Amino acid sequence: MKDVQNFIDTRNINIKKVGVKTVSYPISLRDRSRVRQHTVATANMYANLQHNCKGTHMSRFVEVLNKYHGDFDTSRIPEILKAMKDRLGAEASHLDLTFPYFTTGVVSPCTEREKDYPQKKYYCTLHGSLEKDADVRLTVQVPISFTFGSEHAVSCRWGVADVAVAFRNFYWLEDIIALAEAGIDEASKAVQSSHEPKLTAELLCRAICSQLRPVRELRSYTVTVHNLSDACATFASARG
Amino acid sequence: MKDVQNFIDTRNINIKKVGVKTVSYPISLRDRSRVRQHTVATANMYANLQHNCKGTHMSRFVEVLNKYHGDFDTSRIPEILKAMKDRLGAEASHLDLTFPYFTTGVVSPCTEREKDYPQKKYYCTLHGSLEKDADVRLTVQVPISFTFGSEHAVSCRWGVADVAVAFRNFYWLEDIIALAEAGIDEASKAVQSSHEPKLTAELLCRAICSQLRPVRELRSYTVTVHNLSDACATFASARG
Amino acid sequence: MKDVQNFIDTRNINIKKVGVKTVSYPISLRDRSRVRQHTVATANMYANLQHNCKGTHMSRFVEVLNKYHGDFDTSRIPEILKAMKDRLGAEASHLDLTFPYFTTGVVSPCTEREKDYPQKKYYCTLHGSLEKDADVRLTVQVPISFTFGSEHAVSCRWGVADVAVAFRNFYWLEDIIALAEAGIDEASKAVQSSHEPKLTAELLCRAICSQLRPVRELRSYTVTVHNLSDACATFASARG
Amino acid sequence: MKDVQNFIDTRNINIKKVGVKTVSYPISLRDRSRVRQHTVATANMYANLQHNCKGTHMSRFVEVLNKYHGDFDTSRIPEILKAMKDRLGAEASHLDLTFPYFTTGVVSPCTEREKDYPQKKYYCTLHGSLEKDADVRLTVQVPISFTFGSEHAVSCRWGVADVAVAFRNFYWLEDIIALAEAGIDEASKAVQSSHEPKLTAELLCRAICSQLRPVRELRSYTVTVHNLSDACATFASARG
Repeated sequence: MKDVQNFIDTRNINIKKVGVKTVSYPISLRDRSRVRQHTVATANMYANLQHNCKGTHMSRFVEVLNKYHGDFDTSRIPEILKAMKDRLGAEASHLDLTFPYFTTGVVSPCTEREKDYPQKKYYCTLHGSLEKDADVRLTVQVPISFTFGSEHAVSCRWGVADVAVAFRNFYWLEDIIALAEAGIDEASKAVQSSHEPKLTAELLCRAICSQLRPVRELRSYTVTVHNLSDACATFASARG
Repeated sequence: MKDVQNFIDTRNINIKKVGVKTVSYPISLRDRSRVRQHTVATANMYANLQHNCKGTHMSRFVEVLNKYHGDFDTSRIPEILKAMKDRLGAEASHLDLTFPYFTTGVVSPCTEREKDYPQKKYYCTLHGSLEKDADVRLTVQVPISFTFGSEHAVSCRWGVADVAVAFRNFYWLEDIIALAEAGIDEASKAVQSSHEPKLTAELLCRAICSQLRPVRELRSYTVTVHNLSDACATFASARG
Repeated sequence: MKDVQNFIDTRNINIKKVGVKTVSYPISLRDRSRVRQHTVATANMYANLQHNCKGTHMSRFVEVLNKYHGDFDTSRIPEILKAMKDRLGAEASHLDLTFPYFTTGVVSPCTEREKDYPQKKYYCTLHGSLEKDADVRLTVQVPISFTFGSEHAVSCRWGVADVAVAFRNFYWLEDIIALAEAGIDEASKAVQSSHEPKLTAELLCRAICSQLRPVRELRSYTVTVHNLSDACATFASARG
Repeated sequence: MKDVQNFIDTRNINIKKVGVKTVSYPISLRDRSRVRQHTVATANMYANLQHNCKGTHMSRFVEVLNKYHGDFDTSRIPEILKAMKDRLGAEASHLDLTFPYFTTGVVSPCTEREKDYPQKKYYCTLHGSLEKDADVRLTVQVPISFTFGSEHAVSCRWGVADVAVAFRNFYWLEDIIALAEAGIDEASKAVQSSHEPKLTAELLCRAICSQLRPVRELRSYTVTVHNLSDACATFASARG
């Protein structure tokens, strides 16, 4: 019986965090053209527990999901976080939703040649947290590609920019993507006109930040640019 | 010329972090039986830059790697971090190494049936950081499986435990794995003997923590147990 | 100029197959309850070229996609294949569509405990080919899980069954899933009642095949059962 | 008891193929510079069973692995296949080994800038089959990258070439990589010198094939070139 005796001691260990991961289900989102877009999201939900918490009920995460499923809207994230925090008696609640977002409306010079493709896809993550106040952030992955040579003879993938923003006021996802793509164009032109010697992760990172800096709707942003063309994938990160 | 004029402004944006990712190369490690084990690691190296840093030299990461490659040893991680910090003139340097680790020596009751397999594989990550003092942590993923029925009629995968530790003194990776597997056995027995009603992520998490708690060589630990058997993958996390 | 001279010789080499891969976009499908289900598919489209084909026009794949996008239905796959074959002047055309499919309607004893979850997800692939006649096949991945102990104390993931079928007549995806889950239950009961000594990939494979065999709507089927619980993942495959 | 009665019928269903998947372990290989290279391979082993086969013994795959593990050499693949076929009483046996291969010796103009990197990595797969005669094939993934602008201002990833070969006589892996990279250079130069209007998957595919065609040591080859720079990843395939 030694094992079981032993085992009772483990109850002094406090679980700090519990949750459910990679629950996937269809969601719909309103896009800038006011059309409902249907996509599939992967959700992570978790809670920070109080010190004296004696037991958790994982099924309550599912109850909350079930309640909002089918009528999901990004504007309801604070309400979902509140329901999670209350239902679990938690100190803080968190929700991450990752989904591919499709757009046809954003055309930038560097991506013009893709205009015939059915749709452009961007991986997005919405991160919501609630301790005292709800905090919602958005991360979007913007591909970085270039076209070279006479009549665009060669088109290449350079890397990806991860653009994470916290909102002061509402701002369209499509506009964040457009700003990131404008920054990428600017960096590309600076190299083509020899104002910059080399296209680097640092140069692209600063160029994208300079586009986001004047936007009053954004409370803060973090831009990380990854060069995937290298065997050694370099990256650079800045905040504002 | 507007673009380029515009562009010059971006230089006021400070890059905070630069690095190289997913550089992979063969390393060798000493295992508990004193045999050199050959495996393949994926390295991430990055640095926090000083506020007034005017430019970074990504190639210096590669120089440092080249210098230590071929003669790598976990005990040299502080030395590599120091070289990175100095060479880049950085505030702090970081190195992550992820690799599969193979072992035949660890046999626990729950895994006994695997003894005929060529080797057991555990994914490990070494995380080193240097600001003032070097800090080295290790994370190991320990699979959680169970066997049921008369004569082990059914064997199933339940999930995985991520065990992260910070060292006070040297401690073998094999011993951390053995402790985690002992915790898994203990939780399993508590359910089989009906001392616990249900096998949950929380129960397994507490059982593994209770094994790590007495180990003086460990300064701290975080255990996160993931149940991968569910459509809704639950997890629980605790620290000590 | 040697390189370029050399290069001209390469034109004697005939390209046998061209296509586009991993184009992803939202599709909608009719499910058994007659509700339109919205999901995100990844498409591969390719064509076998005629021996004397002098050049291909990859953009024509995109034209075909654009034409059917927004009004996609599985019943239109032969029509899409015909459009691809004609537009590219090809010997044969192929289309693969992979997507997660969500269902609440299928409840089997082994999965009953998941009934509170928002939805069950199954990865499906539709494979269409057209040389002379159109041939449409469907593959669905059915997770294999088990629950053990008094009051379902432990639930575990055992593996996955890949069920591939060719249709003689229309048959609902939900019914194929239900048959596979009935086979899994049957194998499980045979082990629990000791009519079979051990739950193996072969046993599960035969049990699922025996469910599909009487279905006249299916022209043929291939079942491959993977045991993911092992360090050495075993599998068994049978056809009918 | 209906279920169990029912179940007995399933025994008429013949299992056609059994095996073990994703067994991973360290292997060592001799490279061109005669140095033993240590890497980690993932193995798939499977067998086609005879029609009247009454039961299989998956553990025999493991026995065979155990016997050759630690003393593995590519030249022993036919011997391993023979042992698998005999031990399982199978009609045919198959072995796939996938591993990253590291090289410093291959430098081509397009990759010259990577010479400072610790090592270049290529994913390789060895496929062995034995029905009457042993057949060994090798697939290697060769990255396709380009550098543009004055003083190599921009370097980009274009895609990847999958080069699969069957051997008539021994031929070094390093030499296959060198030929593929020579084909990539040639196609690049043809575009830069405007002898070809555009860099396409077809052009690169023909250029690589033209390099492999004269090699007498190769019995056959299949080259598939994937353009990963596009949202719509195009590919082209040819054989010789």
